[in-house]
Amino acid sequence: MNFNYYMPSRLFFGKGEIEKLGTEKLPGKKALLVISAGGSMKKYGYLDKVTDLLKKNDTDYVLFDKILPNPIKSHVMEGAAVAKTQGCDFVIGLGGGSSIDSAKAIAVMATNEGDYWDYIGGGSGKGLPVPNKPLPIIAITTTAGTGTEADPWMVVTKEETGEKIGGGFDGTFPYFSIIDPDLMMSIPAHLTAYQGFDALFHSTEGYINKTANFMSDLFALASIELIGKYLPRAVRDGSDAEARAMVALANTLAGMVESTSGCTSEHSLEHALSGYHPKLPHGAGLIMISLEYNKLFADKVCPERFVAMAKALGKTDAVHPQDFVTALAELQKACGVDNLKMSDYGIKADEMQEIARHAKDTMGGLFEVDRYQLSHEEIVSILEKSYR
Amino acid sequence: MNFNYYMPSRLFFGKGEIEKLGTEKLPGKKALLVISAGGSMKKYGYLDKVTDLLKKNDTDYVLFDKILPNPIKSHVMEGAAVAKTQGCDFVIGLGGGSSIDSAKAIAVMATNEGDYWDYIGGGSGKGLPVPNKPLPIIAITTTAGTGTEADPWMVVTKEETGEKIGGGFDGTFPYFSIIDPDLMMSIPAHLTAYQGFDALFHSTEGYINKTANFMSDLFALASIELIGKYLPRAVRDGSDAEARAMVALANTLAGMVESTSGCTSEHSLEHALSGYHPKLPHGAGLIMISLEYNKLFADKVCPERFVAMAKALGKTDAVHPQDFVTALAELQKACGVDNLKMSDYGIKADEMQEIARHAKDTMGGLFEVDRYQLSHEEIVSILEKSYR
Ligand SMILES: [Zn+2]
Ligand SMILES: [Zn+2]
Repeated sequence: MNFNYYMPSRLFFGKGEIEKLGTEKLPGKKALLVISAGGSMKKYGYLDKVTDLLKKNDTDYVLFDKILPNPIKSHVMEGAAVAKTQGCDFVIGLGGGSSIDSAKAIAVMATNEGDYWDYIGGGSGKGLPVPNKPLPIIAITTTAGTGTEADPWMVVTKEETGEKIGGGFDGTFPYFSIIDPDLMMSIPAHLTAYQGFDALFHSTEGYINKTANFMSDLFALASIELIGKYLPRAVRDGSDAEARAMVALANTLAGMVESTSGCTSEHSLEHALSGYHPKLPHGAGLIMISLEYNKLFADKVCPERFVAMAKALGKTDAVHPQDFVTALAELQKACGVDNLKMSDYGIKADEMQEIARHAKDTMGGLFEVDRYQLSHEEIVSILEKSYR
Repeated sequence: MNFNYYMPSRLFFGKGEIEKLGTEKLPGKKALLVISAGGSMKKYGYLDKVTDLLKKNDTDYVLFDKILPNPIKSHVMEGAAVAKTQGCDFVIGLGGGSSIDSAKAIAVMATNEGDYWDYIGGGSGKGLPVPNKPLPIIAITTTAGTGTEADPWMVVTKEETGEKIGGGFDGTFPYFSIIDPDLMMSIPAHLTAYQGFDALFHSTEGYINKTANFMSDLFALASIELIGKYLPRAVRDGSDAEARAMVALANTLAGMVESTSGCTSEHSLEHALSGYHPKLPHGAGLIMISLEYNKLFADKVCPERFVAMAKALGKTDAVHPQDFVTALAELQKACGVDNLKMSDYGIKADEMQEIARHAKDTMGGLFEVDRYQLSHEEIVSILEKSYR
């Protein structure tokens, strides 16, 4: 039951906390402000809000607005070059996981030489240690999905090879993070569901992970319970402020799970899927494979943990590990995501051998923290049974 | 439900984790090693263990072994002078709360001018901001009581006036903390109980505090549950390794409660008692006043929180707020501390007016986070009813 706890990011959580950006001591005088290319930060007024608060806090900024939903390495390198040229001394990621993860990666490359993939372990990454401290990072979340505001992780795709690999270390924990559910009210229902399930799987994977411990269990069960209770409400009615806040909290807790335990091979499988098919949202990919993945694990290992997760999801009379799979299927139905199809995203039935290999090649590390070692055939079988 | 979460200390928790001192990157090359005057660190071999590990990690140290059970300001000033003269660049507190709190205070005064009381708010303290960053602090706990390894707080007494006041800020969070229950096996039964109840009250006060929030509640209820389950076992049989570990964990969680919520006026009352009567152990003082204190609050505010605490303490059928007071009394009985007497520590029945005044003068701040405002008469009444 030994553990190493470390989550040094300061979290400002709650309605209206965005105002802290205008009043807290910031870690620099000129920010690189990283947002998505999609335009929603402008459309919903979040960009104006943030730049007004920076002005109020007497802080300069340069906008970098190129991030894609599945962020790519070339934008990381480009953002870092802008930060260097413009003399930015900290980085703000405003948006969903893609913008904040990119902000982290840009912060690394703004103070280090070479290519971002030099510092990535797995696949064609060189896995070198990062010599210089990254620029300080501020995370301002406008989605409740990746938990990146409370963990060091950043996921970027090397576009030439479709390798979608996570990186991160002590230096990529945010300096502070603002989680203000007011900035999440406009997320469309289907994305609310995808992101909420991503958060859920961070917690469930952290809970069945070999490295699970007392602290991660505490965060994981609390997070699973909140998702089970509030995600259907947030999906059904995006203006339900309480549900939005609780799902946001669940997601931050899931980030703390990722900081103290971690993901399992379920994430490796999904990264292989959306690495090859960048239009597939990460959360949707996870939802697609989750029933078959958990069905297999619930039969193999830590039955009492699957029962506990079923109970946390609201099935208080759960006794069998497979009750968790049932609860998960019910939650997917309640959130309208019980009928997602890989084929809708251009994924072909005959790709599964290759995707299984790619998952192990690029994110093999996560298989090592699984309590059960999946064979290549079992991975293919999970993918094939999940295919529609 | 807004909150600000910040607990940047890295925690190494568990059996054998002391070895990390020999392998982790340390924050300096020469430590001031702060221990108590009592000799137990030598007697039980902990000092030798720590100095061996420092040697292994190629790190020098200077020993400062003067700390009293209720640490005093003159030792803080003396330790800081030694650190300055000897060129120490970090401070290690090895021992119970007194040694670690002193290490924190010494770390502050090793880099700042003036008197420690210049930086203390309350009583005769000047409440000035601390201009310079303290030396980095490593906390190695050998008791399970104050939670200081996971919070910024330090409690020191100004011996001339009997003012026992807590201080602390972002800079006094430990750089890292080692919580190794192997170093707690030799604590005598009565101290195990006093310290365990101190941890319990950090959690219960944090839970009924005005500033309680989702994160502190999570830590508080988990901690209360562990204390209820394992403290009687640890008191009954000090060699029960599982019970020791679980009480240690409960105490660290209680520290996280203190970092995210905080203590209430119960601690102000106790600090006034043991400030004037330094032989009274802090935990014993808390035990003495806790039934009357909680009886009053359970009648006045947040009844559902008292019920939740009663349930966490093991009274699963609790329905009435006063059930918590019953559970607390039962736990005190199970730990053999249901019969502590103020008179045994030289406290006189006619001191209560003065102690009540002193509590408000020195630690008035904690009354402000109470959900119910105690009158002077009510404070006196709690003290008088607790007097034996
Ligand atoms: Zn994910
Ligand atoms: Zn205390």
